Amino acid sequence: MSKLVIVGTVAFDAIETPFGKTDKILGGAATFIGLAASHFNIDSSVVSIIGGDFPQKYLDLLSNRNIDISGVEIVKEGKTFFWSGKYHNDMNSRDTLATELNVLADFNPVVPSNYRNSDIVMLGNLHPIVQMSVLEQMESKPKLVILDTMNFWMDCALKELHEVIKKVNVITINDEEARQLTGEYSLVVAARKIHEMGPKYVVIKKGEHGALLFHDDNVFYAPALPLEEVFDPTGAGDTFAGGFAGYLAKTEDVSFENMKNAVIYGSTLASFCVEKFGTERMVALKSSEVHQRLQQFKNLTQFDIELR
Amino acid sequence: MSKLVIVGTVAFDAIETPFGKTDKILGGAATFIGLAASHFNIDSSVVSIIGGDFPQKYLDLLSNRNIDISGVEIVKEGKTFFWSGKYHNDMNSRDTLATELNVLADFNPVVPSNYRNSDIVMLGNLHPIVQMSVLEQMESKPKLVILDTMNFWMDCALKELHEVIKKVNVITINDEEARQLTGEYSLVVAARKIHEMGPKYVVIKKGEHGALLFHDDNVFYAPALPLEEVFDPTGAGDTFAGGFAGYLAKTEDVSFENMKNAVIYGSTLASFCVEKFGTERMVALKSSEVHQRLQQFKNLTQFDIELR
Repeated sequence: MSKLVIVGTVAFDAIETPFGKTDKILGGAATFIGLAASHFNIDSSVVSIIGGDFPQKYLDLLSNRNIDISGVEIVKEGKTFFWSGKYHNDMNSRDTLATELNVLADFNPVVPSNYRNSDIVMLGNLHPIVQMSVLEQMESKPKLVILDTMNFWMDCALKELHEVIKKVNVITINDEEARQLTGEYSLVVAARKIHEMGPKYVVIKKGEHGALLFHDDNVFYAPALPLEEVFDPTGAGDTFAGGFAGYLAKTEDVSFENMKNAVIYGSTLASFCVEKFGTERMVALKSSEVHQRLQQFKNLTQFDIELR
Repeated sequence: MSKLVIVGTVAFDAIETPFGKTDKILGGAATFIGLAASHFNIDSSVVSIIGGDFPQKYLDLLSNRNIDISGVEIVKEGKTFFWSGKYHNDMNSRDTLATELNVLADFNPVVPSNYRNSDIVMLGNLHPIVQMSVLEQMESKPKLVILDTMNFWMDCALKELHEVIKKVNVITINDEEARQLTGEYSLVVAARKIHEMGPKYVVIKKGEHGALLFHDDNVFYAPALPLEEVFDPTGAGDTFAGGFAGYLAKTEDVSFENMKNAVIYGSTLASFCVEKFGTERMVALKSSEVHQRLQQFKNLTQFDIELR
């Protein structure tokens, strides 16, 4: 079984959707990635930073799932990163109401020594300089480095972003971000341009429209499960990435064929994430439920045309 | 092999896309449906109306493909229906520049007597009263009636539309139209409401995001093939419907399981349609190309997670 190191935010979120609103609840990219990956019972470590205001029960929630939190720096006198957002009625767009970097402003990630030889590195959405710092701390070359990023870094740290993109094997990015990064509307052309920037594998997330995995001239498509209701999309992209990385770590197979399964697992876990606010659904999730939903994905996508 | 009767427009289109523009070229829902269905070498008949300005070569193009055109009324002194549109850069939205109903304004469809016992009826996008008239002419109850419609009829003939929807087994509709028809944003909920209106099978077309097939609590998803370039989306939805209907006619199996294959065939044919202006690509299409692209759809969607 491969080890997985995850860098990203561990944070407070306050979320408003047409279904209601929350106070400050557990959030953050590394939280969602870690929870999703923990489904595979792998050795994983979260590298992050929090303030003295972060409840012990949230840390326990992570460590109870076999997530190593020795890489989570606690700044006693500091405050935890806080994000607040409000989703519009269609759930496809949102307004950011508040972003308080707090301790994240001075984050120097430190990868625990026993994770510096991890096979898989998942660089959650953060400043590309922080992502690069994690890579530089690895003592052996990982089998696979996965990077998630967003348009914000394209706007304000494009050069640094390109430098870290060069070093990764897989990038996960949403459709609008892929278009922004490449200046290409066609996702097929955009993926090819991103290949040329470094990553051999490009995952383009399309929210309710699923996700595309590109590798050379090959492409695989994982739909999103059609849901009656998306309650809260927060963390769905990170949950997807965590499921993807966790499955690859568990199976120790980073081939394109196995990555197909990994994006199906990512989509499956993401389909649960959006059913409740924040991490609530992921925390309660049972493996029997995952199994059942994988069967739904099979029913959703598998057909039987014989080609001779 | 089942017989297929198709009602819809046979028309002139003038199209402008970011890649260029056309003069008046062959278009119309029944044209695209007929061309797609003809790929399956079935007995099909197009019921439509044209003016004296319609070139014989276009009629020959249809009859050369074993499409019975005895149900195409020719109004010598009249002009053929004409539509002109301009697509925006993203190809997902378009402006209608001209709609000249011409002979279509007084269209009383007449189903040829040897097609009044057809097993499959494809009601292309037209006034619901015209669609109903075709159904009323059937002498035996068809195995399957498929209806395509659009928002225009929801705006100006909703009552008549509901009456014909009651009588059909399958409806094909795009996502925005499904939302308009039901007042529901969630496509899962929208499909359920449309079931309650009559059709046991609901196909929701999402353009570049593929298509969903709903039946009771079952859902199947056919992606659109990710393309480098969509040259002209005109007729893609009709081509999809024609491939769907044609495959079902060929295989004489209208089960949900077989409809999965039918939507894959529909998506496959639609992926060719958008590669050139109007009907150009469909006219040139070879079965070896279809075969190859079906393999691409398999590669795009099939995965191998074992569930015990």
